[in-house]
Amino acid sequence: MKQSTGSHKTRTSIWAGIALSTLTLSTVAHAAGDEALVIPADSNQIAYPAGWQNWSVIASSHRTDNNTLRVILGNDIAIKAARQGHTLPWPDGAVLGKVVWKATALPSWPAAVAPGELVHTEFMFKDSKRFQDSYGWGFGRWLGMAQTPFNEGNQSCIACHTPVKDNDWVFTEPARFPSTGVSH
Amino acid sequence: MKQSTGSHKTRTSIWAGIALSTLTLSTVAHAAGDEALVIPADSNQIAYPAGWQNWSVIASSHRTDNNTLRVILGNDIAIKAARQGHTLPWPDGAVLGKVVWKATALPSWPAAVAPGELVHTEFMFKDSKRFQDSYGWGFGRWLGMAQTPFNEGNQSCIACHTPVKDNDWVFTEPARFPSTGVSH
Repeated sequence: MKQSTGSHKTRTSIWAGIALSTLTLSTVAHAAGDEALVIPADSNQIAYPAGWQNWSVIASSHRTDNNTLRVILGNDIAIKAARQGHTLPWPDGAVLGKVVWKATALPSWPAAVAPGELVHTEFMFKDSKRFQDSYGWGFGRWLGMAQTPFNEGNQSCIACHTPVKDNDWVFTEPARFPSTGVSH
Repeated sequence: MKQSTGSHKTRTSIWAGIALSTLTLSTVAHAAGDEALVIPADSNQIAYPAGWQNWSVIASSHRTDNNTLRVILGNDIAIKAARQGHTLPWPDGAVLGKVVWKATALPSWPAAVAPGELVHTEFMFKDSKRFQDSYGWGFGRWLGMAQTPFNEGNQSCIACHTPVKDNDWVFTEPARFPSTGVSH
Protein backbone atom coordinates (compact mmCIF):
# COMPACT_ATOMS: atom_id res chain seq x y z
CA MET A 1 0.00 0.00 0.00
CA LYS A 2 1.39 3.40 -1.00
CA GLN A 3 2.04 5.97 1.70
CA SER A 4 0.01 9.15 1.29
CA THR A 5 2.10 12.25 0.76
CA GLY A 6 -0.68 14.75 1.44
CA SER A 7 -1.19 16.54 4.75
CA HIS A 8 -4.16 15.59 6.92
CA LYS A 9 -5.83 18.90 6.09
CA THR A 10 -5.44 18.41 2.33
CA ARG A 11 -6.83 14.92 2.52
CA THR A 12 -9.78 16.13 4.57
CA SER A 13 -10.62 18.68 1.89
CA ILE A 14 -10.37 16.05 -0.81
CA TRP A 15 -12.71 13.77 1.07
CA ALA A 16 -15.15 16.61 1.68
CA GLY A 17 -15.15 17.31 -2.06
CA ILE A 18 -15.76 13.67 -2.89
CA ALA A 19 -18.55 13.53 -0.33
CA LEU A 20 -20.23 16.57 -1.92
CA SER A 21 -19.97 15.14 -5.41
CA THR A 22 -21.51 11.82 -4.34
CA LEU A 23 -24.38 13.14 -2.27
CA THR A 24 -26.82 10.72 -3.85
CA LEU A 25 -24.40 7.86 -4.46
CA SER A 26 -22.41 5.52 -2.30
CA THR A 27 -19.56 3.36 -3.48
CA VAL A 28 -18.71 -0.09 -2.24
CA ALA A 29 -15.86 -2.37 -3.17
CA HIS A 30 -16.68 -4.87 -5.87
CA ALA A 31 -16.23 -8.37 -4.47
CA ALA A 32 -14.66 -9.81 -7.61
CA GLY A 33 -11.99 -7.22 -8.31
CA ASP A 34 -10.85 -3.65 -8.09
CA GLU A 35 -13.87 -2.10 -9.81
CA ALA A 36 -16.16 0.01 -7.65
CA LEU A 37 -19.90 -0.50 -7.62
CA VAL A 38 -21.87 2.69 -7.57
CA ILE A 39 -25.04 2.23 -5.55
CA PRO A 40 -27.58 5.07 -5.66
CA ALA A 41 -28.93 6.32 -2.35
CA ASP A 42 -32.31 5.22 -0.99
CA SER A 43 -35.59 6.30 -2.55
CA ASN A 44 -38.46 6.78 -0.11
CA GLN A 45 -36.16 5.18 2.50
CA ILE A 46 -35.86 2.00 0.43
CA ALA A 47 -32.46 0.61 -0.61
CA TYR A 48 -31.53 0.42 -4.30
CA PRO A 49 -32.19 -3.10 -5.63
CA ALA A 50 -28.64 -3.65 -6.91
CA GLY A 51 -28.36 -6.14 -9.74
CA TRP A 52 -31.85 -5.60 -11.18
CA GLN A 53 -30.30 -5.25 -14.66
CA ASN A 54 -29.84 -9.03 -14.61
CA TRP A 55 -33.39 -9.88 -13.50
CA SER A 56 -35.77 -11.83 -15.73
CA VAL A 57 -38.83 -10.54 -17.56
CA ILE A 58 -42.42 -10.49 -16.33
CA ALA A 59 -43.91 -8.39 -19.15
CA SER A 60 -43.40 -5.35 -21.35
CA SER A 61 -45.56 -2.45 -22.45
CA HIS A 62 -45.80 0.53 -24.74
CA ARG A 63 -47.68 3.39 -23.12
CA THR A 64 -49.13 5.29 -26.02
CA ASP A 65 -50.43 8.06 -23.72
CA ASN A 66 -46.96 9.24 -22.75
CA ASN A 67 -45.02 7.45 -25.50
CA THR A 68 -42.76 5.35 -23.34
CA LEU A 69 -41.60 1.77 -23.70
CA ARG A 70 -41.28 -0.38 -20.59
CA VAL A 71 -40.04 -3.76 -19.52
CA ILE A 72 -41.26 -5.18 -16.25
CA LEU A 73 -38.70 -7.32 -14.43
CA GLY A 74 -38.80 -9.34 -11.23
CA ASN A 75 -36.42 -10.69 -8.64
CA ASP A 76 -36.37 -14.48 -8.16
CA ILE A 77 -39.37 -14.50 -5.80
CA ALA A 78 -41.42 -12.36 -8.17
CA ILE A 79 -40.48 -14.41 -11.24
CA LYS A 80 -41.46 -17.67 -9.54
CA ALA A 81 -44.79 -16.15 -8.50
CA ALA A 82 -45.42 -14.74 -11.99
CA ARG A 83 -44.62 -18.00 -13.79
CA GLN A 84 -46.81 -20.02 -11.40
CA GLY A 85 -49.65 -17.48 -11.44
CA HIS A 86 -49.42 -16.76 -7.72
CA THR A 87 -49.78 -13.00 -7.91
CA LEU A 88 -53.01 -12.25 -6.06
CA PRO A 89 -51.44 -11.34 -3.77
CA TRP A 90 -47.78 -11.25 -4.72
CA PRO A 91 -45.68 -12.99 -2.02
CA ASP A 92 -43.57 -11.20 0.58
CA GLY A 93 -40.07 -10.62 -0.77
CA ALA A 94 -41.25 -10.09 -4.33
CA VAL A 95 -39.76 -7.04 -6.05
CA LEU A 96 -41.17 -5.78 -9.34
CA GLY A 97 -39.08 -3.46 -11.47
CA LYS A 98 -40.24 -1.24 -14.31
CA VAL A 99 -37.61 0.18 -16.66
CA VAL A 100 -38.98 3.14 -18.62
CA TRP A 101 -37.51 4.56 -21.82
CA LYS A 102 -38.77 7.24 -24.17
CA ALA A 103 -40.17 5.53 -27.25
CA THR A 104 -38.30 6.02 -30.49
CA ALA A 105 -38.42 4.52 -33.99
CA LEU A 106 -35.89 1.78 -34.72
CA PRO A 107 -33.73 3.27 -37.52
CA SER A 108 -33.50 -0.01 -39.45
CA TRP A 109 -37.24 -0.71 -39.18
CA PRO A 110 -39.18 2.51 -38.52
CA ALA A 111 -42.48 0.71 -37.87
CA ALA A 112 -40.84 -0.76 -34.75
CA VAL A 113 -41.08 1.37 -31.60
CA ALA A 114 -37.88 0.84 -29.58
CA PRO A 115 -36.29 2.15 -26.35
CA GLY A 116 -34.65 5.58 -26.55
CA GLU A 117 -33.50 7.73 -23.66
CA LEU A 118 -33.88 6.17 -20.19
CA VAL A 119 -36.52 8.02 -18.17
CA HIS A 120 -36.38 6.19 -14.84
CA THR A 121 -36.64 2.86 -13.07
CA GLU A 122 -39.47 2.14 -10.66
CA PHE A 123 -39.72 -0.68 -8.14
CA MET A 124 -42.44 -2.13 -5.92
CA PHE A 125 -41.22 -4.04 -2.86
CA LYS A 126 -43.68 -6.44 -1.22
CA ASP A 127 -43.32 -6.69 2.56
CA SER A 128 -46.61 -7.01 4.38
CA LYS A 129 -45.07 -6.09 7.74
CA ARG A 130 -42.69 -3.27 6.84
CA PHE A 131 -45.17 -1.67 4.48
CA GLN A 132 -48.37 -2.49 6.32
CA ASP A 133 -49.45 1.15 6.14
CA SER A 134 -49.27 1.13 2.32
CA TYR A 135 -51.08 -2.11 1.49
CA GLY A 136 -47.92 -4.21 1.80
CA TRP A 137 -45.96 -2.35 -0.85
CA GLY A 138 -43.01 0.01 -0.73
CA PHE A 139 -42.38 2.12 -3.83
CA GLY A 140 -39.01 3.38 -5.06
CA ARG A 141 -38.03 5.33 -8.14
CA TRP A 142 -34.61 6.31 -9.49
CA LEU A 143 -34.28 8.87 -12.29
CA GLY A 144 -32.24 8.74 -15.48
CA MET A 145 -28.93 7.06 -16.19
CA ALA A 146 -27.55 8.49 -12.91
CA GLN A 147 -30.43 6.80 -11.06
CA THR A 148 -31.02 9.82 -8.84
CA PRO A 149 -33.43 8.83 -6.08
CA PHE A 150 -36.97 10.15 -6.04
CA ASN A 151 -38.11 11.02 -2.53
CA GLU A 152 -41.66 12.29 -2.65
CA GLY A 153 -42.91 9.36 -0.62
CA ASN A 154 -44.99 6.23 -1.07
CA GLN A 155 -48.29 8.08 -1.10
CA SER A 156 -47.63 9.81 -4.42
CA CYS A 157 -47.15 6.35 -5.98
CA ILE A 158 -50.13 4.75 -4.27
CA ALA A 159 -52.45 7.49 -5.52
CA CYS A 160 -51.76 6.52 -9.15
CA HIS A 161 -52.04 2.80 -8.40
CA THR A 162 -55.52 3.08 -6.87
CA PRO A 163 -57.29 1.90 -10.07
CA VAL A 164 -55.62 -1.49 -9.55
CA LYS A 165 -56.16 -1.89 -5.81
CA ASP A 166 -58.10 -5.10 -6.51
CA ASN A 167 -55.12 -6.46 -8.47
CA ASP A 168 -52.83 -6.18 -5.39
CA TRP A 169 -52.04 -2.61 -6.53
CA VAL A 170 -50.14 -3.88 -9.60
CA PHE A 171 -50.91 -2.77 -13.17
CA THR A 172 -48.78 -5.47 -14.83
CA GLU A 173 -50.35 -8.70 -16.02
CA PRO A 174 -47.55 -11.29 -16.34
CA ALA A 175 -46.91 -12.21 -19.97
CA ARG A 176 -47.39 -15.80 -21.10
CA PHE A 177 -44.11 -17.70 -21.07
CA PRO A 178 -43.86 -21.32 -22.23
CA SER A 179 -42.63 -23.66 -19.49
CA THR A 180 -40.46 -25.63 -21.93
CA GLY A 181 -36.91 -26.16 -20.72
CA VAL A 182 -37.29 -24.56 -17.27
CA SER A 183 -38.24 -25.98 -13.91
CA HIS A 184 -40.67 -23.33 -12.78
CA MET B 1 -36.88 -51.03 -9.70
CA LYS B 2 -40.26 -52.61 -10.36
CA GLN B 3 -40.45 -55.60 -12.64
CA SER B 4 -42.54 -54.95 -15.76
CA THR B 5 -45.53 -57.27 -16.14
CA GLY B 6 -46.20 -56.46 -19.82
CA SER B 7 -44.98 -58.61 -22.69
CA HIS B 8 -42.19 -57.31 -24.91
CA LYS B 9 -44.71 -56.75 -27.72
CA THR B 10 -47.03 -54.67 -25.50
CA ARG B 11 -44.16 -52.57 -24.23
CA THR B 12 -42.94 -51.98 -27.77
CA SER B 13 -46.39 -50.68 -28.77
CA ILE B 14 -46.50 -48.38 -25.75
CA TRP B 15 -43.11 -46.96 -26.59
CA ALA B 16 -44.09 -46.49 -30.23
CA GLY B 17 -47.18 -44.58 -29.07
CA ILE B 18 -45.14 -42.37 -26.77
CA ALA B 19 -42.64 -41.75 -29.53
CA LEU B 20 -45.44 -40.66 -31.86
CA SER B 21 -46.97 -38.32 -29.30
CA THR B 22 -43.63 -36.63 -28.61
CA LEU B 23 -42.41 -36.23 -32.14
CA THR B 24 -41.38 -32.65 -31.55
CA LEU B 25 -40.51 -32.91 -27.86
CA SER B 26 -37.96 -34.73 -25.80
CA THR B 27 -38.12 -35.14 -22.05
CA VAL B 28 -35.18 -35.21 -19.72
CA ALA B 29 -35.07 -35.76 -15.99
CA HIS B 30 -35.02 -32.57 -13.94
CA ALA B 31 -31.81 -32.50 -11.94
CA ALA B 32 -33.40 -31.06 -8.81
CA GLY B 33 -36.36 -33.38 -8.39
CA ASP B 34 -38.96 -35.58 -9.98
CA GLU B 35 -40.31 -32.99 -12.41
CA ALA B 36 -39.65 -33.57 -16.08
CA LEU B 37 -38.26 -30.86 -18.28
CA VAL B 38 -39.85 -30.72 -21.68
CA ILE B 39 -37.28 -29.69 -24.26
CA PRO B 40 -38.58 -28.93 -27.75
CA ALA B 41 -36.80 -30.58 -30.66
CA ASP B 42 -34.21 -28.74 -32.75
CA SER B 43 -35.11 -25.92 -35.11
CA ASN B 44 -32.99 -25.69 -38.25
CA GLN B 45 -30.75 -28.33 -36.59
CA ILE B 46 -30.08 -26.03 -33.63
CA ALA B 47 -30.77 -27.17 -30.05
CA TYR B 48 -33.42 -25.40 -27.97
CA PRO B 49 -31.76 -22.81 -25.70
CA ALA B 50 -33.21 -24.21 -22.47
CA GLY B 51 -33.54 -21.68 -19.67
CA TRP B 52 -33.94 -18.60 -21.86
CA GLN B 53 -36.97 -17.56 -19.76
CA ASN B 54 -34.49 -16.51 -17.07
CA TRP B 55 -32.21 -14.49 -19.36
CA SER B 56 -31.76 -10.74 -18.94
CA VAL B 57 -33.06 -7.98 -21.18
CA ILE B 58 -31.29 -6.33 -24.11
CA ALA B 59 -34.24 -4.31 -25.43
CA SER B 60 -37.94 -4.38 -26.24
CA SER B 61 -40.08 -3.27 -29.15
CA HIS B 62 -43.60 -2.75 -30.38
CA ARG B 63 -43.92 -3.56 -34.05
CA THR B 64 -46.80 -1.44 -35.20
CA ASP B 65 -46.79 -3.03 -38.68
CA ASN B 66 -47.86 -6.45 -37.41
CA ASN B 67 -49.03 -5.36 -33.95
CA THR B 68 -46.74 -7.48 -31.86
CA LEU B 69 -44.86 -6.73 -28.67
CA ARG B 70 -41.36 -8.12 -28.22
CA VAL B 71 -38.68 -8.42 -25.61
CA ILE B 72 -35.14 -9.13 -26.72
CA LEU B 73 -33.14 -11.23 -24.27
CA GLY B 74 -29.56 -12.45 -24.21
CA ASN B 75 -27.50 -15.22 -22.67
CA ASP B 76 -24.62 -14.17 -20.40
CA ILE B 77 -22.19 -13.62 -23.29
CA ALA B 78 -24.72 -11.50 -25.19
CA ILE B 79 -25.67 -9.44 -22.13
CA LYS B 80 -22.04 -8.66 -21.35
CA ALA B 81 -21.45 -7.61 -24.96
CA ALA B 82 -24.62 -5.49 -25.03
CA ARG B 83 -23.85 -3.69 -21.77
CA GLN B 84 -20.28 -2.99 -22.84
CA GLY B 85 -21.25 -1.96 -26.37
CA HIS B 86 -19.25 -4.73 -28.01
CA THR B 87 -21.85 -5.76 -30.58
CA LEU B 88 -20.23 -5.01 -33.93
CA PRO B 89 -19.70 -7.87 -34.29
CA TRP B 90 -21.39 -9.80 -31.47
CA PRO B 91 -18.92 -12.28 -29.92
CA ASP B 92 -18.94 -16.02 -30.55
CA GLY B 93 -21.20 -17.77 -28.05
CA ALA B 94 -23.69 -14.90 -27.90
CA VAL B 95 -27.32 -15.94 -28.20
CA LEU B 96 -30.04 -13.35 -28.77
CA GLY B 97 -33.66 -14.28 -28.04
CA LYS B 98 -36.77 -12.50 -29.22
CA VAL B 99 -40.05 -13.31 -27.49
CA VAL B 100 -43.03 -12.23 -29.59
CA TRP B 101 -46.58 -11.73 -28.34
CA LYS B 102 -49.67 -10.35 -30.05
CA ALA B 103 -50.23 -6.83 -28.79
CA THR B 104 -53.28 -6.23 -26.64
CA ALA B 105 -54.61 -3.37 -24.51
CA LEU B 106 -53.94 -3.63 -20.77
CA PRO B 107 -57.44 -3.86 -19.23
CA SER B 108 -56.59 -1.59 -16.30
CA TRP B 109 -54.92 1.04 -18.50
CA PRO B 110 -56.14 0.76 -22.11
CA ALA B 111 -53.58 3.24 -23.45
CA ALA B 112 -50.90 0.69 -22.54
CA VAL B 113 -50.14 -1.93 -25.19
CA ALA B 114 -49.26 -5.19 -23.43
CA PRO B 115 -48.36 -8.80 -24.33
CA GLY B 116 -51.28 -11.04 -25.30
CA GLU B 117 -51.07 -14.45 -26.94
CA LEU B 118 -47.55 -15.82 -27.47
CA VAL B 119 -46.70 -15.99 -31.17
CA HIS B 120 -43.23 -17.53 -31.11
CA THR B 121 -39.70 -17.25 -29.82
CA GLU B 122 -36.77 -16.59 -32.16
CA PHE B 123 -33.07 -16.97 -31.46
CA MET B 124 -29.85 -16.01 -33.18
CA PHE B 125 -26.78 -18.06 -32.25
CA LYS B 126 -23.36 -16.56 -33.01
CA ASP B 127 -20.73 -19.12 -33.97
CA SER B 128 -18.37 -17.90 -36.67
CA LYS B 129 -17.12 -21.43 -37.41
CA ARG B 130 -20.28 -23.52 -37.27
CA PHE B 131 -22.32 -20.93 -39.12
CA GLN B 132 -19.64 -19.60 -41.45
CA ASP B 133 -21.95 -20.12 -44.42
CA SER B 134 -24.58 -17.80 -42.92
CA TYR B 135 -22.46 -14.86 -41.81
CA GLY B 136 -21.69 -16.43 -38.42
CA TRP B 137 -25.29 -16.77 -37.30
CA GLY B 138 -27.60 -19.72 -36.81
CA PHE B 139 -31.31 -18.94 -36.62
CA GLY B 140 -33.92 -20.93 -34.66
CA ARG B 141 -37.62 -20.35 -34.11
CA TRP B 142 -40.13 -22.17 -31.94
CA LEU B 143 -43.86 -21.57 -32.33
CA GLY B 144 -46.51 -20.88 -29.69
CA MET B 145 -46.74 -22.06 -26.11
CA ALA B 146 -45.86 -25.60 -27.26
CA GLN B 147 -42.67 -24.20 -28.83
CA THR B 148 -43.04 -26.32 -31.95
CA PRO B 149 -39.82 -26.07 -33.96
CA PHE B 150 -39.72 -24.16 -37.23
CA ASN B 151 -37.63 -25.96 -39.82
CA GLU B 152 -37.61 -23.92 -43.01
CA GLY B 153 -33.90 -23.30 -42.74
CA ASN B 154 -31.53 -20.45 -42.00
CA GLN B 155 -31.91 -18.87 -45.42
CA SER B 156 -35.52 -17.83 -44.85
CA CYS B 157 -34.37 -15.91 -41.77
CA ILE B 158 -31.33 -14.37 -43.41
CA ALA B 159 -33.43 -13.02 -46.27
CA CYS B 160 -35.42 -10.84 -43.86
CA HIS B 161 -32.30 -9.73 -41.98
CA THR B 162 -30.52 -8.45 -45.10
CA PRO B 163 -31.42 -4.79 -44.40
CA VAL B 164 -29.22 -5.00 -41.28
CA LYS B 165 -26.26 -6.86 -42.76
CA ASP B 166 -24.04 -3.91 -41.80
CA ASN B 167 -25.24 -4.20 -38.19
CA ASP B 168 -23.95 -7.79 -37.93
CA TRP B 169 -27.37 -8.94 -39.22
CA VAL B 170 -29.10 -7.79 -36.01
CA PHE B 171 -32.08 -5.42 -35.94
CA THR B 172 -31.96 -4.83 -32.19
CA GLU B 173 -30.16 -1.79 -30.77
CA PRO B 174 -29.36 -2.56 -27.11
CA ALA B 175 -31.38 -0.36 -24.78
CA ARG B 176 -29.60 2.02 -22.41
CA PHE B 177 -29.16 0.47 -18.98
CA PRO B 178 -27.56 2.37 -16.09
CA SER B 179 -24.45 0.64 -14.75
CA THR B 180 -25.35 1.43 -11.14
CA GLY B 181 -25.11 -1.56 -8.82
CA VAL B 182 -23.75 -4.07 -11.35
CA SER B 183 -20.24 -5.05 -12.31
CA HIS B 184 -20.61 -5.16 -16.07
